[in-house]
Amino acid sequence: MLAQFTIFPVGKGESLSKDVAKILDIIDKSGLTYKFSPMATTVEGDWDEVMALIKKCRDRLRKTNDRIYTSIVIDDRKRARNRLSGKVEAVEKVLKRKLSK
Amino acid sequence: MLAQFTIFPVGKGESLSKDVAKILDIIDKSGLTYKFSPMATTVEGDWDEVMALIKKCRDRLRKTNDRIYTSIVIDDRKRARNRLSGKVEAVEKVLKRKLSK
Amino acid sequence: MLAQFTIFPVGKGESLSKDVAKILDIIDKSGLTYKFSPMATTVEGDWDEVMALIKKCRDRLRKTNDRIYTSIVIDDRKRARNRLSGKVEAVEKVLKRKLSK
Amino acid sequence: MLAQFTIFPVGKGESLSKDVAKILDIIDKSGLTYKFSPMATTVEGDWDEVMALIKKCRDRLRKTNDRIYTSIVIDDRKRARNRLSGKVEAVEKVLKRKLSK
Repeated sequence: MLAQFTIFPVGKGESLSKDVAKILDIIDKSGLTYKFSPMATTVEGDWDEVMALIKKCRDRLRKTNDRIYTSIVIDDRKRARNRLSGKVEAVEKVLKRKLSK
Repeated sequence: MLAQFTIFPVGKGESLSKDVAKILDIIDKSGLTYKFSPMATTVEGDWDEVMALIKKCRDRLRKTNDRIYTSIVIDDRKRARNRLSGKVEAVEKVLKRKLSK
Repeated sequence: MLAQFTIFPVGKGESLSKDVAKILDIIDKSGLTYKFSPMATTVEGDWDEVMALIKKCRDRLRKTNDRIYTSIVIDDRKRARNRLSGKVEAVEKVLKRKLSK
Repeated sequence: MLAQFTIFPVGKGESLSKDVAKILDIIDKSGLTYKFSPMATTVEGDWDEVMALIKKCRDRLRKTNDRIYTSIVIDDRKRARNRLSGKVEAVEKVLKRKLSK
């Protein structure tokens, strides 16, 4: 399945870049395939792997923050694999078709 | 923590009421405090309790559906309890103050 | 259509209750049917009415905040009206059926 | 401001790729800077530009679908520009620092 998530502390200074760096490090070490976009991170894995990763991110932020906001969106499709790149390639095909017209 | 979630199959008939009923039953039997609103359900519990419940809802839908969409938003505040009713009461206070003016 | 939304400043003090009060007042005066739940507000109206309301909420918060986070989820169904109460009643029917068994 | 959005019909066939193509075309012609990721599209623009674009996407889908689900998340920061690439560059810096260690 694909899971897109965002996690940030509420009620701290405006710049969230330090927290993003911590979280990024945890995601990178998880071994799951991921893609970072400006508003969220998308990871591919099964339910338990993905949820364990998000919990780890949250536990790390909780060490230094009293209130944390998390948003998770899951697209869970039977027998679907390699969708993180697959979905992007499908869109690139559409774009190429358009450009070549 | 408070978790607001929505879960529904993608690519089936337009009416989702039967699936909502199944999910509702699972939530009701979980023992967690919950509140149903038109677009989502909010439950109160710790991380593992809440995530176990959402996984159960998803497992149930997966029995009869090939693609499932899940959205979860978590407001996780240290030492905060009874916030499901607390947040609503806080708002009702604001409303009463307004009405009595 | 039904629109569930959440709007809050990022990078201010932890308690958001004052901002919630301001927003609530704007929603209440909009004339649209609404329902407040612990994590979000759901309003019923057509696209332009709902978006005008959310923009008004955001403009109000922007007066005193430099960074604002907004989340909007829309369930837009043709020819559907009075769904704010309708959806809740449909669920209550399911609950009653369960309780009477 | 940055707006990440997802829009899809509920209750049609499982594959959403055709609808994605239509939407992509509308986004591409809007003139706004955008970034496509596996679960959502992020665009940069001011409130009215972004909302006009999302409405256009929804109007297109409504031509052939009776029920549409839309999710919008907005990160609205005063005086911030070129954040679509800026945010990604900030993260790439963090990644490089990590790799060079």
